[in-house]
Amino acid sequence: MGPDAAKYFKRIGIVGAGNMGTMMSFGFAEQGVDVSLWDISGTNVNRALQMAKDARKEEKTVIGKIDCFCDIHEFTESLNDSNPAVYIFSITHGDPADSILKMIKDDLRAGDIILDGGNEHYRNTERRQRELEKKGVHWVGMGVSGGYQSARRGPSMSPGGTKDAVEKVLPLLEKFAAKDRRNSKPCVAYIGPYGAGHYVKMVHNGIENGMLSTISEAWSMMHKSLGMPFDEISRVFERWNSKGELRSTFLVQIGSEICLKKKTPEGDQRGEGAGRFGFVLDDVLDKVVQDVDNTEGTLYWTVSESAFRHVAAPTIATGHFIRVASGNRDQRLRVAEKLNIPGPHKANDVRDKEALLEDLQRAVYASFLCSFCQGLELIARASKDEGWDINLGTCIRIWRAGCIIQAEHILDLFETVFSSSSGQSQPIMNMKLIDEISSDLHKNFQPLKKIVLKAMEWDNCVPSMSASLEYIKYEGGTMLPTQFMEAEMDYFGAHAYDKPNVKNEDPGEPNKGAHHYEWKPA
Amino acid sequence: MGPDAAKYFKRIGIVGAGNMGTMMSFGFAEQGVDVSLWDISGTNVNRALQMAKDARKEEKTVIGKIDCFCDIHEFTESLNDSNPAVYIFSITHGDPADSILKMIKDDLRAGDIILDGGNEHYRNTERRQRELEKKGVHWVGMGVSGGYQSARRGPSMSPGGTKDAVEKVLPLLEKFAAKDRRNSKPCVAYIGPYGAGHYVKMVHNGIENGMLSTISEAWSMMHKSLGMPFDEISRVFERWNSKGELRSTFLVQIGSEICLKKKTPEGDQRGEGAGRFGFVLDDVLDKVVQDVDNTEGTLYWTVSESAFRHVAAPTIATGHFIRVASGNRDQRLRVAEKLNIPGPHKANDVRDKEALLEDLQRAVYASFLCSFCQGLELIARASKDEGWDINLGTCIRIWRAGCIIQAEHILDLFETVFSSSSGQSQPIMNMKLIDEISSDLHKNFQPLKKIVLKAMEWDNCVPSMSASLEYIKYEGGTMLPTQFMEAEMDYFGAHAYDKPNVKNEDPGEPNKGAHHYEWKPA
Repeated sequence: MGPDAAKYFKRIGIVGAGNMGTMMSFGFAEQGVDVSLWDISGTNVNRALQMAKDARKEEKTVIGKIDCFCDIHEFTESLNDSNPAVYIFSITHGDPADSILKMIKDDLRAGDIILDGGNEHYRNTERRQRELEKKGVHWVGMGVSGGYQSARRGPSMSPGGTKDAVEKVLPLLEKFAAKDRRNSKPCVAYIGPYGAGHYVKMVHNGIENGMLSTISEAWSMMHKSLGMPFDEISRVFERWNSKGELRSTFLVQIGSEICLKKKTPEGDQRGEGAGRFGFVLDDVLDKVVQDVDNTEGTLYWTVSESAFRHVAAPTIATGHFIRVASGNRDQRLRVAEKLNIPGPHKANDVRDKEALLEDLQRAVYASFLCSFCQGLELIARASKDEGWDINLGTCIRIWRAGCIIQAEHILDLFETVFSSSSGQSQPIMNMKLIDEISSDLHKNFQPLKKIVLKAMEWDNCVPSMSASLEYIKYEGGTMLPTQFMEAEMDYFGAHAYDKPNVKNEDPGEPNKGAHHYEWKPA
Repeated sequence: MGPDAAKYFKRIGIVGAGNMGTMMSFGFAEQGVDVSLWDISGTNVNRALQMAKDARKEEKTVIGKIDCFCDIHEFTESLNDSNPAVYIFSITHGDPADSILKMIKDDLRAGDIILDGGNEHYRNTERRQRELEKKGVHWVGMGVSGGYQSARRGPSMSPGGTKDAVEKVLPLLEKFAAKDRRNSKPCVAYIGPYGAGHYVKMVHNGIENGMLSTISEAWSMMHKSLGMPFDEISRVFERWNSKGELRSTFLVQIGSEICLKKKTPEGDQRGEGAGRFGFVLDDVLDKVVQDVDNTEGTLYWTVSESAFRHVAAPTIATGHFIRVASGNRDQRLRVAEKLNIPGPHKANDVRDKEALLEDLQRAVYASFLCSFCQGLELIARASKDEGWDINLGTCIRIWRAGCIIQAEHILDLFETVFSSSSGQSQPIMNMKLIDEISSDLHKNFQPLKKIVLKAMEWDNCVPSMSASLEYIKYEGGTMLPTQFMEAEMDYFGAHAYDKPNVKNEDPGEPNKGAHHYEWKPA
């Protein structure tokens, strides 16, 4: 890293001075690039302005200028000397992005490049690409992952759109991007045409939530059934994060930090924590509202996409459903009163806690791996359906640093496969067909089963871990309960079935069966 | 029922001579209505023609004429004397429906009514409604449920669109519809405007699959772990179907028949069964392909809709995912070889089989009930979002007979609520807030838990039943694992959280939290 990115673009424009946009402004300025920053909210602009002043006063490493604008046309004008002008959008998906695009549309010139760094649905991205194509303007759907810390220090990015346009800005993005610790390679690359970049980010967030739900289920089980205090859980997470299959896993690592964090007057930035030095975690309610209040779309888009593309993604989907259920706490408490079922309770029959924690580690790993399988299969499927030709190895590479789903061992596993010749000859659509993956699922199946059984016995919520257990069973089952489902559907719907041990039927192709039995004449 | 429906419409036109279309032709003809039948495939037309001749020869109760057409304009001309002309579409959703509509569009006259009886995505229905509105033609999205037997003997129907148009054909549909056994009321009613009718049918199919997966999981557990032969399972299903919470449940009842069905030379209509008098069920492979080959959309649309409308529907979704996984048997067998995990095995530790079967009955019921809760909540949500004003009591009423999700006790439960004054004053969005529902979930929670634990111990696949168990826990949990998820998201995304025991925060509204902790400065 060095403050010489200005040789690619002297100035860029950032639209949106929320958490992510402001942090990106600082991030680019630290690379030596001047930044024009605009937001529809004057409050956001002023906050960013103040932060820029403070940073300079404290001689933080802000090298480029950060110029804040309230007038959008003054903002676009400030990029008149740049040819092409490069904009980064960091605003809410859907209507807000459309309305702001409309505001600046007339100011855009042929060749200009807009990197939409928000979480946008890929179909919206493609619609804007078509719309701007007529003007010769390039709209690039670019996932930016890593949260606001990474947005400043270097995120993982997945730009998709016109290849030429992406390649023009790639040197700049490479400067800014997070770097793989092993080889300093930047965690950004051209993903594919059209909506491919936003699609990959969407799935990244889906995988993220399968992992988030899993680690939360493990945390809850340790805290509520094993009665472990937060600092003990922190040490367990730290150990997991330090070696073995869960080594260098971002969500485990920050989990370890979170469990230790005590309230300070500074931490909540309002002085609320003053004089109350308990754990911050005790202050956090179980309400996740990002879906319900529509600020976040990627997770439910992933669930919807997995349904539409016929890719089984139960770890991700159930992780979504518990989130949805958690959001309306008021309603949930009223339901709880009526349902009157036991909550998680203390386990009194644990003879070997260390062995159980070892199983838990393996169960968490297996469920993380299921989440990755589901996400990668969804990308593979969409890439084939849409003709995007996404290289899964590239996805693995940009997830090495800066992003939320960093997980060293899992990424190592997939990298080995995708960089081997067999991985390149034809795209792998089913990740369980990879020896290294199925072998790890095999090794960790029994621990996962043990943990799910124990968790259920103790009335813990384990939607994602139990969904992962079932997933492994039916993805690799030789005679599924769907035998009976098939018979019932043939009964009332004449859906037809194939027969066992008949050539071209067993296993045969996934096409309509060759036989109908008239179980009950009409 | 009587053959006097001709007083409403002397002749109707049916587009599509597949299983459903042909059977509907017979069904309407039996009501005394003349039917014009057209199909794009000459083979289908000829088959229908032959069936009509045979029926007359055998003096089956076909009263109206069935005229088959290969030329689509001759077909539409045959309805020239009808004013308005009434068409029923019974063809595959999406492009096929569009292309045929295009073929007859110029033949349609203002006032004509098209009932689309296929399973169509409600947004396509609404698009066609807008398109035809200009011509004064009414496109009615009408779910038809019950399979091909009901299509002939009387299905359950959910028409939605222009109210006037639906009311014009309602007397005819009421003649044709299945009748509630208790009061002979027809299982058809106006559902709501725009896509409301197709939406309700879509969700019906979602509920259906949650139930299908559940009953299949129970069947598999009895067969593979309890070692019960098919005829013994049949008797269990028969008992369940005869009284108690699973009484008169269509999928249980046909399950009982299916388990007994022996191969006959006639049954498979090709003489293949000749000389091989084993159980038909032994001939059925576990490949469900309706999603993968795109012949059926309703189920994955339901999953997608539940994601988009933030309604937790895990029983339905996991039932979809196992279906998807089952379709590609070839790939599954290859994965199985690599995964090498145990399949369902014999239980050797069952001391009281009757008690276990009693628990299984309760578990199946609880999971069915979860499937209904999820489906009804999705309808309630969509109805509110779209302004459809769907009466859930009407849905319950039309599901009483003819359709696949008939389940007397569950429908009784909901009918009681929806017909009471409290149910009418404001729409119920969360079914678990209903005393009767939460009380039944409470009563059957422990049996469901026991069964899921046993099933998992014996390595059975129970995706839907385990998802139902988790669903009950998190829908009524007071402190969910999402507490930790919320903290992690605040760490990296500054998503903010609410605090316990703080007014307007706990429980508070499902809005963005009031606090952010700076776990790690950027």
